[in-house]
Amino acid sequence: MSLKRTLHHFPLDPASRQVRLALGEKRLAFTEVQVRYWERPKDLTAMNPSGLLPVLVEEDGDDRLVICESRAILDHLEETSPEPPLLGRDAAERAEARRLMQWFDRKFDFEAGGYILHEKMEKRLLGMGAPDLANLRQGRDGLRSHMFYIEKLLQEREWLAGRKLSLADFAAAAHLSLIDYFGDMPWSGSPAVKTWYMKLKSRPCFRPLLLDRWPGLTPAKHYDDLDF
Amino acid sequence: MSLKRTLHHFPLDPASRQVRLALGEKRLAFTEVQVRYWERPKDLTAMNPSGLLPVLVEEDGDDRLVICESRAILDHLEETSPEPPLLGRDAAERAEARRLMQWFDRKFDFEAGGYILHEKMEKRLLGMGAPDLANLRQGRDGLRSHMFYIEKLLQEREWLAGRKLSLADFAAAAHLSLIDYFGDMPWSGSPAVKTWYMKLKSRPCFRPLLLDRWPGLTPAKHYDDLDF
Repeated sequence: MSLKRTLHHFPLDPASRQVRLALGEKRLAFTEVQVRYWERPKDLTAMNPSGLLPVLVEEDGDDRLVICESRAILDHLEETSPEPPLLGRDAAERAEARRLMQWFDRKFDFEAGGYILHEKMEKRLLGMGAPDLANLRQGRDGLRSHMFYIEKLLQEREWLAGRKLSLADFAAAAHLSLIDYFGDMPWSGSPAVKTWYMKLKSRPCFRPLLLDRWPGLTPAKHYDDLDF
Repeated sequence: MSLKRTLHHFPLDPASRQVRLALGEKRLAFTEVQVRYWERPKDLTAMNPSGLLPVLVEEDGDDRLVICESRAILDHLEETSPEPPLLGRDAAERAEARRLMQWFDRKFDFEAGGYILHEKMEKRLLGMGAPDLANLRQGRDGLRSHMFYIEKLLQEREWLAGRKLSLADFAAAAHLSLIDYFGDMPWSGSPAVKTWYMKLKSRPCFRPLLLDRWPGLTPAKHYDDLDF
């Protein structure tokens, strides 16, 4: 078996982070290529016409498989490297994990994370000037509602989708860790979310994310602090 | 086996349509409950806190499984009722089908379908007045770019993800059929897409969608015409 994996990603992209966490948890080695997706490089659109990250390339001798979009990559890894399972073992656990993946990738991103990352990150990367404060407020208001919901879930559960760590935790952590990078996480009102995030932060799969830095985008002081 | 399925859905919702097509293609019987999601009924948010459709409920004696969000339902059906398979048989076919599912549910919806359905459908349902013509134009411009891409794919392939009908076709057809309902599909410049859509329209799983009508929302004349 000489399968070689290459992940094309951007360190501060929520979708890319989910795949890095899954690869790490499954202990699958990979080479990384960091992509400045906002410049729409031709190498990227040739692999993925949507221009979105991440893209995973698996090469085995002459065979080459290009897998685009985070959900497709996560499903592929679950099918081809099932241990440890990250989707729950029975239908109810799987349904709950998948419901929450959708929650974070669509609803959370749309109502909270997307505003904050656009104003604090993408505008900087694109040279679009200062954040729009009304947008930022909208994102922070959305974030507060979401934190209320996540806190309620985690007061009753060890992990987001139930008793086991799952892709739902990675989806949530991918989005929240970036908001934390930019110093916007309201930790003080959410003790259960904080405990859950400390557990995640301590896992080996999380280490590479805590080391991420990007020129011109300085993380909050506590970003890589395991005891924040 | 006395499994009873109930699908909570809205007939003109793209996510609901994908699940109805999959249930139909797999010949799985279900009871339907039509939900006026824009009124945010409590029955719906009690099942799915996101307030989104569709929701599938499976009851087997005292066991009750509630599955929320289209992708979770489609994955569940593929796992529990694998015949006929709708995700391709090898890793490359599956990756391609999943890439395109994401394409339609995010990129297409965001750049084209979302504008058109919001202006022509949701505003009517919500009593928000006449369509905004600038938004409508934006959606139609996006639609033209997407049709160019889909046409190119279908000139080289029998089905969207390759040689077999897959969930990618249902994702595309769910979105495009609704734009067709509102008379906005630019069929004339896309002969391969038109041929593909005629094949889909003729399948038994598509019949219920062609019969959909909603008070106050009259479909285009050719909407249910198999030879349009």
